[in-house]
Amino acid sequence: MTSPVLAPSALDALVAALQERHPEIEVRPSSPATVDYLHDAATRLAPAGSASTIGPAVALPASPEHVQDLVRIAAEHGVPVVPRGAGSGLSGGASATTGELVISTERLTRILEVSPEDEVAVVEPGVLNAELNAHLAPLGLFYAPDPASWRISSIGGNIATNAGGLRCAKYGVTRESVLALDVVLADGSLISVGHRSIKGVTGLDLVSLFVGSEGVLGIVVAATVRLRPIPAARRTVTAFFDSTAEGAAALAAITASRVRPSIVEFFDEPTLVSIDRHSHSRLRERGGSLLLIELDGFGIAEQFAELRDALTAVGGRVQAETDADGEVLWELRRSGRGFDLDSWFSGGDIAVPKSRIPEVYAYFAVLQERYGVEVSAVAHAGDGNLHPLITLRIPDGADPSAPPATLHDATDDLVRFALSVGGTVSGEHGIGTVKRELAAVELSPRTLAAQHALKAALDPTGLFNPGKAF
Amino acid sequence: MTSPVLAPSALDALVAALQERHPEIEVRPSSPATVDYLHDAATRLAPAGSASTIGPAVALPASPEHVQDLVRIAAEHGVPVVPRGAGSGLSGGASATTGELVISTERLTRILEVSPEDEVAVVEPGVLNAELNAHLAPLGLFYAPDPASWRISSIGGNIATNAGGLRCAKYGVTRESVLALDVVLADGSLISVGHRSIKGVTGLDLVSLFVGSEGVLGIVVAATVRLRPIPAARRTVTAFFDSTAEGAAALAAITASRVRPSIVEFFDEPTLVSIDRHSHSRLRERGGSLLLIELDGFGIAEQFAELRDALTAVGGRVQAETDADGEVLWELRRSGRGFDLDSWFSGGDIAVPKSRIPEVYAYFAVLQERYGVEVSAVAHAGDGNLHPLITLRIPDGADPSAPPATLHDATDDLVRFALSVGGTVSGEHGIGTVKRELAAVELSPRTLAAQHALKAALDPTGLFNPGKAF
Repeated sequence: MTSPVLAPSALDALVAALQERHPEIEVRPSSPATVDYLHDAATRLAPAGSASTIGPAVALPASPEHVQDLVRIAAEHGVPVVPRGAGSGLSGGASATTGELVISTERLTRILEVSPEDEVAVVEPGVLNAELNAHLAPLGLFYAPDPASWRISSIGGNIATNAGGLRCAKYGVTRESVLALDVVLADGSLISVGHRSIKGVTGLDLVSLFVGSEGVLGIVVAATVRLRPIPAARRTVTAFFDSTAEGAAALAAITASRVRPSIVEFFDEPTLVSIDRHSHSRLRERGGSLLLIELDGFGIAEQFAELRDALTAVGGRVQAETDADGEVLWELRRSGRGFDLDSWFSGGDIAVPKSRIPEVYAYFAVLQERYGVEVSAVAHAGDGNLHPLITLRIPDGADPSAPPATLHDATDDLVRFALSVGGTVSGEHGIGTVKRELAAVELSPRTLAAQHALKAALDPTGLFNPGKAF
Repeated sequence: MTSPVLAPSALDALVAALQERHPEIEVRPSSPATVDYLHDAATRLAPAGSASTIGPAVALPASPEHVQDLVRIAAEHGVPVVPRGAGSGLSGGASATTGELVISTERLTRILEVSPEDEVAVVEPGVLNAELNAHLAPLGLFYAPDPASWRISSIGGNIATNAGGLRCAKYGVTRESVLALDVVLADGSLISVGHRSIKGVTGLDLVSLFVGSEGVLGIVVAATVRLRPIPAARRTVTAFFDSTAEGAAALAAITASRVRPSIVEFFDEPTLVSIDRHSHSRLRERGGSLLLIELDGFGIAEQFAELRDALTAVGGRVQAETDADGEVLWELRRSGRGFDLDSWFSGGDIAVPKSRIPEVYAYFAVLQERYGVEVSAVAHAGDGNLHPLITLRIPDGADPSAPPATLHDATDDLVRFALSVGGTVSGEHGIGTVKRELAAVELSPRTLAAQHALKAALDPTGLFNPGKAF
């Protein structure tokens, strides 16, 4: 479901009003030149994405005051507002329709302050995750949430989706690293929520309500985030297993140990094959599945010894990698497994309780049998979050932009399986436009009603990001 | 501000209806026998606490269904409901008036499940924090939030206040350990929010909204909490300094290091003197202030070496304690510093950014000069959360139950100072009834309006805990 396309006149009138009253704010009218803003990474990749050749209107504010002015005047004109970060999202949450006003934070890119003494940074939402970390590294600090897309995703978008990433197995997701926010609400007012202190319980936790709210409650214009010291040491460890099932089962041995690695990524056999094919690596020669692990902090030798014993006992071939080899492996992980252009595909980001990961991998055979699809997954195994890839070979002569219903059905089936074992539709990408039906399966009618009541309390006219999230 | 006392008839009619329609639920009418339920630990200790000799009506549900029935029928009768855990709260959040119905979770004490494989426990709200940890210890697991009151405080109350504690410097506050909740809303419906998986971003984060909401949004009847492995090792370290100022300044040396202890408690000079007087310890002989630290995890020797070097360089006398001595020291910390019955006193739980802790201690001299009070504080220094104790000697012949305005003014002044350096009114106890004026100083009118709108969205008639929190 997306919001209805308005008559062009409402949007045109809004753009004209903005250009007259606020010439200092760059606003681009709806045109073929803004067509990129119809999409985020999810709908751009999706075969069934919008084929419109006319984009939305796009505003590029350069200050929080600009955002306030834009929201106030859009509300006056009754034009829906789509908040947008770097547009790298994987759920359609930042996609727009031709009749909407996109407020992009791509020019709000200042790092306003870094305080090593308080272990906080204050940043504008358009700062890229990797930019912030590059800025912090010389100070011996880092910002823990690290989505695989960190080179292209912005802090504002990370906040909107409560982004996870590789290291959140140990350090928590974005929510655990956000202390305070400045947010523009639907009436154009600016509120500051949270505090610079690490702790604080005064009033309801509005920071957590805004984090992960997918742009439906307000627009974040500044964030105070928590920093951490770069650990005393980091070491990459590989554990190869003969099969996918053996590797998945071995995760329980880590849970039963006292070692909590900063990263635990699991690659099943088809993923290793796919990476090898696209990156000229030779991972599959070393085993039929891989746990790629990062240990960090103090006592690396002690940690490694306990981890090695735990994984060796369940069939793992465990090795501490050199720094150089470790870098190559992490680069392979972050680049993704590659896509084959001769197949339709569908992804996702289900999360399940840790002990249920092996059952999810075992269920791939059921899907294959039932729908004729190929299924593989790389997993943030330390916290039970999987990125499945469901593919179906495009037959000769078939329309590549028209995947058959079986692809959708298989995706749906897998998500319902995750729900049946206590999991969730989305572990870190958000619901956006592409998972709304499934979100309604996960959330009971009463819970959905509560969500809508909270939305209406802060945005009574439904100005922000209509048709998204829940 | 407390809610107005209703005419007895409304409450009497409610109790009669409950006894007739639900004889299986124990309900005690308003009477002198329920007078304890007028108070929590804050208002019981406060000289100006309610002097009523008639308590509220009290219901003791034994199941979630009982809670639903109670809420539904209280709503029908228009009688306000005060949710209550163990009554150990320090902000008046669980205090009641004679005209209200207290729904106490003291009989919902089942540990429903412990899953080492998923690292979760499912518990009813009346389980005491220390009970849960005693149950988990043989499994090699622990529940991280550990308020100093853990022997008497319940998980439900911890959730209502987003309780902190000693170890949250490293492991986070209650919010970071709660994955899912079953909550009874004001219409008597039961919703399940969150999920058993560690990650999940489907919909707005209702779990975080309920955690710390001080009973104004609903009644938690079950919680799925996150567990952690008991660390490979724990070591208690003391660092004594010549003065309060030197010890407070030394905190920056920990921040500048790569060591992040599981606990960092700071005792100023008057606190050491007070503990010695009440516990026959001899801490003051060892120094004029104390950092009491717990290191945990792997590489304890490496951690200790880096910490010792950092603190020795700024004048600390650093020592690793034996396990036996460590236990004595933590027991002294958890028992509190003791109260002198010949003084009026006022407490609190302000939190400030880490680097501002020394200024807070320096400000005590200003308060002493300005109001003639004595001020000291023990601090959860790892996260900037302080527990000040402001005392004023009761002159001969004065009424002990009537402290002078200067005590209130000094408390108020200190909180405003914390706010002026980026801090918050309450780091972990909540606002309850006793800090509402100050919460209104911290939260802007627009932020307060947003909080009230969210409250109204979930509890439109204001059934739950009127007059509390914000």
